[in-house]
Amino acid sequence: MTFWSDEQLASIDRMLNPRSIAVVGATPRMQYGGRFLAAAMGSMERGVDVYPVNPRYEEVQGLKAYPSVSELPEAPDVVGVVVPYHAVLDTLRESHEKGAKSAIVISAGFAERGVDDRRDLQGELGRFAQESGMRVSGPNCLGLANLKDDIWASASSRGASGLSGPVGLVCQSGASAFGPFLTRAVDEGIGFTYIVSTGNEADLDFCDFARYLLDDDDTKVIAGFIEGFKNGRKFVEVARLAAERGKPIVLIKIGRSELGSRAAGSHTAALTGVDARYEAVFEQYGVTRVQDYDDLLQVSNLLARCPRPPSRGVAVVSHSGGISSLTADMFGQAGLDLPPLSERAQDGINGILKGFGWAANPSDVTGFANSDDFPAIMSYMAEDENVGTLVVASAGADAQATQVIAQRDGSDKPVAFLWTGTRGAQSGLPMLRQAGIPVFYVPDKLAAGVRYLNDYHDWRERWLSRGVVDKPEPTAGQEALAKALNGEGALSEYDSKALLRAFGVPTTRGQRVEDTDGAVAAAERIGYPVVVKVNSADILHKTEAGAIRLGLADADAVRKAFEEVTAGARAYDANARIDGALVQEMVSGGVETIVGISYDEQLGPFLLFGTGGVMVEVYEDVALRLCPITRQDALEMIDQVKGARLLRGFRGALAADVDALADTLVRVSQMAALLEGSLGELDINPLMVLPAGQGVKAADALVVGVGG
Amino acid sequence: MTFWSDEQLASIDRMLNPRSIAVVGATPRMQYGGRFLAAAMGSMERGVDVYPVNPRYEEVQGLKAYPSVSELPEAPDVVGVVVPYHAVLDTLRESHEKGAKSAIVISAGFAERGVDDRRDLQGELGRFAQESGMRVSGPNCLGLANLKDDIWASASSRGASGLSGPVGLVCQSGASAFGPFLTRAVDEGIGFTYIVSTGNEADLDFCDFARYLLDDDDTKVIAGFIEGFKNGRKFVEVARLAAERGKPIVLIKIGRSELGSRAAGSHTAALTGVDARYEAVFEQYGVTRVQDYDDLLQVSNLLARCPRPPSRGVAVVSHSGGISSLTADMFGQAGLDLPPLSERAQDGINGILKGFGWAANPSDVTGFANSDDFPAIMSYMAEDENVGTLVVASAGADAQATQVIAQRDGSDKPVAFLWTGTRGAQSGLPMLRQAGIPVFYVPDKLAAGVRYLNDYHDWRERWLSRGVVDKPEPTAGQEALAKALNGEGALSEYDSKALLRAFGVPTTRGQRVEDTDGAVAAAERIGYPVVVKVNSADILHKTEAGAIRLGLADADAVRKAFEEVTAGARAYDANARIDGALVQEMVSGGVETIVGISYDEQLGPFLLFGTGGVMVEVYEDVALRLCPITRQDALEMIDQVKGARLLRGFRGALAADVDALADTLVRVSQMAALLEGSLGELDINPLMVLPAGQGVKAADALVVGVGG
Repeated sequence: MTFWSDEQLASIDRMLNPRSIAVVGATPRMQYGGRFLAAAMGSMERGVDVYPVNPRYEEVQGLKAYPSVSELPEAPDVVGVVVPYHAVLDTLRESHEKGAKSAIVISAGFAERGVDDRRDLQGELGRFAQESGMRVSGPNCLGLANLKDDIWASASSRGASGLSGPVGLVCQSGASAFGPFLTRAVDEGIGFTYIVSTGNEADLDFCDFARYLLDDDDTKVIAGFIEGFKNGRKFVEVARLAAERGKPIVLIKIGRSELGSRAAGSHTAALTGVDARYEAVFEQYGVTRVQDYDDLLQVSNLLARCPRPPSRGVAVVSHSGGISSLTADMFGQAGLDLPPLSERAQDGINGILKGFGWAANPSDVTGFANSDDFPAIMSYMAEDENVGTLVVASAGADAQATQVIAQRDGSDKPVAFLWTGTRGAQSGLPMLRQAGIPVFYVPDKLAAGVRYLNDYHDWRERWLSRGVVDKPEPTAGQEALAKALNGEGALSEYDSKALLRAFGVPTTRGQRVEDTDGAVAAAERIGYPVVVKVNSADILHKTEAGAIRLGLADADAVRKAFEEVTAGARAYDANARIDGALVQEMVSGGVETIVGISYDEQLGPFLLFGTGGVMVEVYEDVALRLCPITRQDALEMIDQVKGARLLRGFRGALAADVDALADTLVRVSQMAALLEGSLGELDINPLMVLPAGQGVKAADALVVGVGG
Repeated sequence: MTFWSDEQLASIDRMLNPRSIAVVGATPRMQYGGRFLAAAMGSMERGVDVYPVNPRYEEVQGLKAYPSVSELPEAPDVVGVVVPYHAVLDTLRESHEKGAKSAIVISAGFAERGVDDRRDLQGELGRFAQESGMRVSGPNCLGLANLKDDIWASASSRGASGLSGPVGLVCQSGASAFGPFLTRAVDEGIGFTYIVSTGNEADLDFCDFARYLLDDDDTKVIAGFIEGFKNGRKFVEVARLAAERGKPIVLIKIGRSELGSRAAGSHTAALTGVDARYEAVFEQYGVTRVQDYDDLLQVSNLLARCPRPPSRGVAVVSHSGGISSLTADMFGQAGLDLPPLSERAQDGINGILKGFGWAANPSDVTGFANSDDFPAIMSYMAEDENVGTLVVASAGADAQATQVIAQRDGSDKPVAFLWTGTRGAQSGLPMLRQAGIPVFYVPDKLAAGVRYLNDYHDWRERWLSRGVVDKPEPTAGQEALAKALNGEGALSEYDSKALLRAFGVPTTRGQRVEDTDGAVAAAERIGYPVVVKVNSADILHKTEAGAIRLGLADADAVRKAFEEVTAGARAYDANARIDGALVQEMVSGGVETIVGISYDEQLGPFLLFGTGGVMVEVYEDVALRLCPITRQDALEMIDQVKGARLLRGFRGALAADVDALADTLVRVSQMAALLEGSLGELDINPLMVLPAGQGVKAADALVVGVGG
C-alpha cells in the first residue's frame, strides 16, 4: 500500500527543516502568536528568515511586520498560523497561493470542541491541505522543533531550548510534547532530532511524521505519545517499514483501560480502537509500548544508544549489597537472567576484592566501585561469555563515570547505569549523560528497559527470519465462496464447516440429515459413538437451546436424539429456520482449543487463539494477531497462551499435534485475509487438537458474513 | 506472644535518642570512624555529649580523645563501635561494664563473609547483647539518624543531613538507607523521624525497631527495605500490632524473583523465606509492598500525609488534555474509577471554562489551571460526592501551588499532585513539597500510590470488623489425633479423611473393604454409582498408579475394579503397604476445588485454596493465608481466586455452596493451627463444592505428619 507520496514527504521535509518561517498572527504580547514568533526568531542566527504577519503592526518584536502572507518577500517554507479558527482556512488558501510549502496551525476551536460545524471545518482544512499539496500540521497543536539545527516553530509557553540527540518524538498533545517530554528530557540529558506535536491531525498525523523519520538517518528511534490512531492501516504500514529497516518505535498509547479511552475519546478528534488489537499489532511489528513520559524517554534513549546485546544474560555490579540484591530481584521479575559468573571472572574479581565484598552476579564490590580497580572488575564481568549487558548500579563521581564510559567504548556489549544518588548530582551523573550512557534511576525501570532492549533485537531477528507474509491469491472456488458470503448473516454449522474445508481446515466427519432414518443411516456410516445436533443458521448456542446430544452409542440413541434436538430447537426459538440435523463423529482424546476471526474496521481481520473451555473466559488467556500470519507467528501465538501447556503433554497426557494446529492457524488467517470485506466473524469452538500426527478437527464452527 | 521487653525498648530508645555518644575507633581521617565522629559532632549543638575513644590520639577532630570506654567521664547512651572485627566483642563488654545503654557496631567481617567462624562470632555478639541488656544494632551497618532532633550516629560517606518528617525508615542495608533512600528523600522534600540501618542483625532486627516506632507518635508510617526477615513470627506479630493501631507499614522486600533471593541469600546473614508466603502475610496484615526506593518514599509519604479518602473515586484535573488522558488511563489500569462528575460540578466548571477545555473527569481546564478560577474548579471537583481523592496534574508556579495547598487545607479529602514539569523547578514544586502535598512525577506511580492509599484504609476497615482469630482449644479427641500424627509419614486416604471428619470437614461416604465381596456389599449400601480405589499410605498418586476406578454402576463393575486397583497398585510399587480398598460414593454436579495446608518453619501453617483441575497448575491461581483465618478471610480468599467464578454459577451452571466452602476453609485453618507441630502437609484434592445448600465433600485427602 502506498500511503505516502514524494510530494508529501517533501512538504514535511520543508516543515521540519525550514529556511524561512512566516508567523501569521504574530504579536508583541507573549501569547501563542508572540511565543511562536519569539521561538522562530531564535533560529535567525542559523540563517532562517522569519516574517511576522499582522496587519495591525508595522513591526513586531523588532522585526518588520507584513500585512498579509501575499505581501511577503518570498514563499516561506512553513507558515505558522495563529489566527481565530474562522480565519484559518483563508490564511491557508492565501499561503498556498503565495507558494508556501507547508503550514502549522496552532489555532484551536475545531473538532476538539465536540460540535459538528467545527468538525466539518476541520475536515475542510484537511481536504484543502491534501488537494493543494501544502501539507498542514494541527490544528490545535503547539508546533514543532528541529533540535538538530536548533530551529523552533512552536508556540509553547515553556520556551525554546532542548538538546540534540538520537530520538525523534511525535506527540498528538502539544502540552505533553513541550511539557513533560521536553522538560524531563532536558533534566535527563536526553536529546532529540525533532519534536513534533500534531494536535487534531486534520491532515498530517503521527504516521506521516513517523514515515518521514524513518528516512532520517539521525533519528535512531521513533518515540510517540498517541491518544488514538487516525488510520490504523497506515500505522500498520509504518510499523512494517520500521520493522524492515530495523528502526525501533517506542510508544505510549492511551487505552490500556476503559478510562483512558473514554478520556481520549472525549477530547480529541481521533478514534481509539480496541486496545487489545493494537497491542497485538505492536507485538507483531516489534513496537515497544511503555507507560509514561520518563519511560518513553529512557527506553528510547537506551534503544538508540545501545547495540544488540550478544545474549540475554545481564551482569550487575554495585558498591552496595542491598542495591545489587534489589536490582537482581527486579531483573528476575522482568524475566531476565543474571547468569553465574565464570570461574575466570570470579577468580579475577576475588583477586581484587581479597575477601571484601562478593564476586558473583550480582557483585557487591564495596568501595572497589570507587577505586582504580573498578575497570578490571567491570571487564571481568562484561567479558564473561554468558553476559550480554553490563549494569553498573552506583553513584560515583566523575572518576567512576570516566571508567564506565571507557568500558562502554572498549566493548561491543551495552552498558547501562542505575544511578542511586541524588538526581541533582554535580559529579558523575552529568558526565554519564553527556557521554550517552543510558541512565535509569530506579531498578524496576532499569530492568524493564534492558528487557525491552533484548526483546526488540530478539524480535527483529525472528522477524527477519519469519518469511514473507503474502496474501495468497484466491482460487476461483474461494472467490465464489467469498461472494456468496457477502451480505449473509450467520451460516449454519454445516455451511460454516464447508467453508472451512474449502480453505483447508479439517472438520469432523459428518452428514446433514432430514429425519430419524437418515440420522441412523449416517451414524452407521460414520461409526458410533456419534453426536447429533440441530443445523440452523439461527441457533448459535446449541447447548443453551438443548439442541445437541453427545456420545450416542447406538441407533436407538440416535433416533431419540434426533427427535429431541429438533424439538429442543423449536421450543427454544419458534421462528428459527431449521435445516435438518447433523450427525457427526464424536472426537475424543484431543485438547479443546478455540480459533476465531474478528474484523476491525480500522485495522482489518484478527486471528484469535486460546485453549478451550472455561479457561478462555475466566483467564482471558488468548493470543491475537492481525491476518495473515506466518507459521512462526502461529507458533508464537501458541507459546503465548498459558493454557497451551495442555498441548505439550501435561500431567502424563499425550502431546498434541501442535504442528497441525500451527498450520491451521496460518490457513484460517489466510482465509480471513482472502475473505476480507466478506467475512465478519468466525468461531471454531472447539477446534480439537488430536495427539501428535493425528491432526486437528473443527468440531463446531460459526461463520458470520460482514452483512450479518 | 511477647517478643519485646520494656528493657529492650528502653535500650532502643536511648540508641535512637542519645544524650551522649561515644565513638570507639574515632579517627581524624574521614573513613568509617572519622565519619561517625564527624556526624555525631554535628549533634553537639543540640546538647549531645560526644566522646572519641582512641588510645592513639590525645585529640581527634578537635575533641579530647579517651584511651578506652572505661575512662569516659560518663556512661554513654550509645557506643559507636568502629574497630576491627576481632576487637568488637571486647569493646562491647567494656562498654557494658561502663554502663552504656546501647551500641551500634559499624565493623564488618562477620556472617557476611560466609565462613563459619565469623558467623559464630556474630552469634556471640548477639547473645552478649541479649544477656547483658545492652542492645546492639549491626554489625556491618552504617548506624542511624534521628531526624526529629537532628542527631546522627552514622558512618555514611554521604554526609549527615536530611529532613524531618513523618516516616520512620528501617533498612538492613546501610548503603541503601544512607544512599538512595536518604538522597532521594532530600531530592523530593520527604522527611523522616528516624533512619536506622540494621546490617547483619546479630541482635536487634527490623522488627525490633519497627516495634519501637509503633510507640512513636511522630512516626506516622513505618517504611522498610528488607532483604530477608530473621524471624518470621516476630514480623507477623509486629504487623499485627501495626494493624491494630492503624499505623501503615510500607516495605520493599527482596525475593520477588529467584534471582533476588539468590542474591540476598548470598550476601546477608538473614534467611529469605518463600516469597509467596510473605506476600500472603502482607495481604493479611495490610502491609503495603512496593518495588523501589522512590516508590517506598512517595507511597510512605502519601500514606503519612493523607486522611482516608471517603470513597475510591478519583477526580483528575489538568491544564493538558494529553496528560489528563494518560493519567486517567493509568488510574483505570490501577483499578480505580474516575466517576463522571455531577451535573452541579459540570455546570459550575463549564460556567468558568466557557467552551474552552473540557469539564469532565478527567478535566482538561487548559489555561484555567493557572488562573484565579482554579480554586473554584478544584472545589467543584472535590466536593462531588463520588470523588474521594483529588489529583492535580500540572506544573504551575507558586500561585498554583498556593491554591492547591488551600484546597487541601479546606477539605477533608486527600489531594495528590502529579508534577509534569522539570524535577528541578524553582517555583511551585518546592512549595508543594514544603507544605506536605504528596507529589508524584509520573502518572503510573501516582495511580499506584492512590490505589495503595485506598487499599490500606479499606483493608483496615475490613480488618477491624473481621472478628478475633483465636486458636480454638482442642478437644481431647483432637489432641489424641495430633499425638498419633506425630512422627507419622503419610496417612492412607481412609485415615486422612477420618482426621478431617474429626475436625468437622465433610468427606465422601465410603467404606474400607478387604475383598471383592466386601466391596460389592459396601457399594450396595452406599448406592451406585461408586468409586473404588486402593487404600495405601504409600501410594500418593492413585491415577498414575492405575489404582482408582470411577463411575462404577453395578456389582460386576465393582468386583472387576477391586481386582484391578489392587493389582495396579502392586504392579506400581511392589513394596507398598496396601490396606485394602475404599468404596466411595461418586460425587457429581459439584465444582472441583483444592484445599491444602503447608507448614513453614519460619512462619507457621499456611492454608491454600484454588479451583481444581489444571487451572491451579497452569495459572497458579491460588490464594494463601497464614492459619488460622476468619470467615471473612475465607471469603476474601475465594474472591481472590479467578477460577472461583465457576462457583458463582458460570455459564448457566448452578451456583455452588460458597458458604459451606468458607466454613470449611476456616475449619481446615483451625485444624492446622491446632495440629501445629504435628501436621506437615494436607491436600484435599478435590474438595467438591456442591450446589448451594448441599455443602462440600472431600473426595480425596492426604495428610502427612511433620515427621513424614
